[in-house]
Amino acid sequence: MNTPSSLLLVLDLVGIFAFALNGALTAVRVVELDIVGVVTLGMITALGGGVLRDVLLDALPPATFLDGRYLVVAAGGGLVAFLLSHRLQRLAWPIIVLDAAGLALFAVTGSSKAVALGFGPGQAVIVGTITAVGGGTLRDVFVRRVPTVLRSELYAVPAMVAAGVTVLAIRLDLYGLAAAVVAAVLCTTIRLLGVRYGINAPRPPGRRI
Amino acid sequence: MNTPSSLLLVLDLVGIFAFALNGALTAVRVVELDIVGVVTLGMITALGGGVLRDVLLDALPPATFLDGRYLVVAAGGGLVAFLLSHRLQRLAWPIIVLDAAGLALFAVTGSSKAVALGFGPGQAVIVGTITAVGGGTLRDVFVRRVPTVLRSELYAVPAMVAAGVTVLAIRLDLYGLAAAVVAAVLCTTIRLLGVRYGINAPRPPGRRI
Amino acid sequence: MNTPSSLLLVLDLVGIFAFALNGALTAVRVVELDIVGVVTLGMITALGGGVLRDVLLDALPPATFLDGRYLVVAAGGGLVAFLLSHRLQRLAWPIIVLDAAGLALFAVTGSSKAVALGFGPGQAVIVGTITAVGGGTLRDVFVRRVPTVLRSELYAVPAMVAAGVTVLAIRLDLYGLAAAVVAAVLCTTIRLLGVRYGINAPRPPGRRI
Repeated sequence: MNTPSSLLLVLDLVGIFAFALNGALTAVRVVELDIVGVVTLGMITALGGGVLRDVLLDALPPATFLDGRYLVVAAGGGLVAFLLSHRLQRLAWPIIVLDAAGLALFAVTGSSKAVALGFGPGQAVIVGTITAVGGGTLRDVFVRRVPTVLRSELYAVPAMVAAGVTVLAIRLDLYGLAAAVVAAVLCTTIRLLGVRYGINAPRPPGRRI
Repeated sequence: MNTPSSLLLVLDLVGIFAFALNGALTAVRVVELDIVGVVTLGMITALGGGVLRDVLLDALPPATFLDGRYLVVAAGGGLVAFLLSHRLQRLAWPIIVLDAAGLALFAVTGSSKAVALGFGPGQAVIVGTITAVGGGTLRDVFVRRVPTVLRSELYAVPAMVAAGVTVLAIRLDLYGLAAAVVAAVLCTTIRLLGVRYGINAPRPPGRRI
Repeated sequence: MNTPSSLLLVLDLVGIFAFALNGALTAVRVVELDIVGVVTLGMITALGGGVLRDVLLDALPPATFLDGRYLVVAAGGGLVAFLLSHRLQRLAWPIIVLDAAGLALFAVTGSSKAVALGFGPGQAVIVGTITAVGGGTLRDVFVRRVPTVLRSELYAVPAMVAAGVTVLAIRLDLYGLAAAVVAAVLCTTIRLLGVRYGINAPRPPGRRI
């Protein structure tokens, strides 16, 4: 009982840190914000998905708000990104990799939290996917981009895969750090291959491209 | 007791299907997305208003999330729109009519659910209106348009009319399929007349137009 | 017991009125909307922060939805701004001052409500800040601007100061109308000085500006 919930906390915090770095670097790169804006966008990116998750699971007030560590890690990630941004701002890949890592970790934590609260496997996969794509979607709305989840490259699909593997592992009583890492690495890999090779889902039939 | 709630479910599902088609066709027409983006925008448009409704009514977790049929119908609508999009993408009117139909159905279901949960008539009208305009508003934010609810043509007003008629019918103990259809047809008609004849609400006084 | 909660209500309603005027004037100035759009944007700006606050505090259904006065004041503010807009639309300062006042009042009410519901001081400051910046952030997303909370000039910081002063006053058993006014005036002053003198938080190190 103790292991899964402390595992959930650790994965959640690592995911929050990755998304806080990602959101803050996006703020520097895309909108050229000051420190408050950079840290704020980092925190919104890091915490947005978890709040959506907890609303859907009726686990209110949201964990990200009740537990001070979530806020500290999110703000810390934003601050670290702010301080390192002059070294990183010409690089696109840290933003992409951090986004893929956050996506993967939140797919795992969102789906495992749903199962822990007694929801069925289908719902757990859905809520894992929404948790994963939620923060990045808020980030994109705030910097006025069409959200990544709608634009080409595989984004929701790898999150769904990670959530599915997580739920399957829980069902088979195999869930633990190893299973969580496998699910997360699988999601990150699919996402990064999608970006690298421009693998896109099919477009509407009968269109000139 | 059974009739109203199964009526609510049916109207909700029809509204979800209409909005899923609408959101998915918008994705094809406005942003040229791939299948995942098209189905995702369809689902967000279809399910967004209901989630807002259930947050406002404290009916969490949201019905759209608890009941698998909501998700299946939303995803199915998005998929159908994706497959038919090459035939429909040059036509503007299916998007407009589907949006008006979804608006009307959600105004009815939002307001009747509020009354069923014990809220007063004023609140039921408000929550019906928010349910109706919520999904389309999220859709517009995601594709970076100023939301329809803010732009000219009558949008919130017909939703408010349908919600008002629904609440009145419940009060007079006349609510049922017939009353729901009357309210929905009334809303759809006002909305479509508004679009067709460019009937707008008054603009601020003293301005050149 | 009665005084703090009636104080909360009064401050909430004044903040709602200020934000409703602000949102409605923004609608006229930035997007040139008709009366429904103007009043709608006023209401979203006025009520958005409070709904976010009540979701985070698990105080659902939101107070802004349960108490009819909130809706009436929000709609009334939007209507007043609509009627006065031809006199005010060339002036930028009413929008800025009303935004600063709403920001200040919601920082006070958000943080004091959090304390009243038993949350700790850190969480009360966070929820006060989110309440304060929430409505204006929704407003900016709806009219397709990068939210003020992300753009330069001090915005989240004065809200955090007002929330901090409020929580401190409650801790020291000094909270009342006087303390609330001091906190709100402090926030408004910092915000307006920030706008007037273009005082910004630091930008990322090592960048040419």
